[in-house]
Amino acid sequence: MDAIKIREATINDLPHIVKLMADDTIGRQREIYTAPLEQCYIDAFNKIRDDKNNILLVACDDEKVVGSLQITFTQYLSHKGSVRATIENVHVAESRRNLGIGTRLMKYAVNLAKEKNCSIVQLTSNKIRKDAHRFYERIGFRATHEGMKLSLE
Amino acid sequence: MDAIKIREATINDLPHIVKLMADDTIGRQREIYTAPLEQCYIDAFNKIRDDKNNILLVACDDEKVVGSLQITFTQYLSHKGSVRATIENVHVAESRRNLGIGTRLMKYAVNLAKEKNCSIVQLTSNKIRKDAHRFYERIGFRATHEGMKLSLE
Repeated sequence: MDAIKIREATINDLPHIVKLMADDTIGRQREIYTAPLEQCYIDAFNKIRDDKNNILLVACDDEKVVGSLQITFTQYLSHKGSVRATIENVHVAESRRNLGIGTRLMKYAVNLAKEKNCSIVQLTSNKIRKDAHRFYERIGFRATHEGMKLSLE
Repeated sequence: MDAIKIREATINDLPHIVKLMADDTIGRQREIYTAPLEQCYIDAFNKIRDDKNNILLVACDDEKVVGSLQITFTQYLSHKGSVRATIENVHVAESRRNLGIGTRLMKYAVNLAKEKNCSIVQLTSNKIRKDAHRFYERIGFRATHEGMKLSLE
């Protein structure tokens, strides 16, 4: 695990991130990994990179991307005008699970949230992902809320 | 209901919004309504107003604020690089519930999300708010996800 490094993603990591996203029970129904990548992913990456409230993180083993997540900081009025951190799109390569990579990524993200004085770190996880819920509970998250979605597609 | 107008909040609405937030089962444990308002709410309001990805809406009956919510637009890589809308801090004055004000507010927010080509509108709602879940389901939301929180306070 010492070789694992967490850092902000660059455009060179993007194909690896999209591959991780597409190589997933739910992701394979909605993502497309091609070489070269579809332009929609490149446009999205550039918008995320240019927004100070959004950070894409990758976990790398040497130079190989083995995990990723996105963290978003949002100013709210609630909790006396606090900022919250929302984590989305958490992925670890299937062949590299249960090795602590997800924990390292999440702890890095939680530390970023602490540095920004966030009141809460939050995420939603599909109810079919029971393993993921146990993982998040192990690192301190509590499933106190219903995560409700309305698809517009 | 014809008198109800939905519009973007101004600083003059802020005391009314904070009062709505504080006058709530969960909100009264964490918000403070004072006249004049605590500076933390004014600072938060200004940051939300200055961020193009965040909009605070109010429902008004004539000039009286009777409901509010915040909508946030976030660029993600997932769903082929789509933008999602997240709704938070939905409040309707206790004396004005079950009159369709929440539905009007939510529909207005969903229309904003459609205009911005969002793939999904999402929210989390505390598991104790059973009435709220039924309300969101009636307007098309599905509780497909666990909403997990880690408090940093």
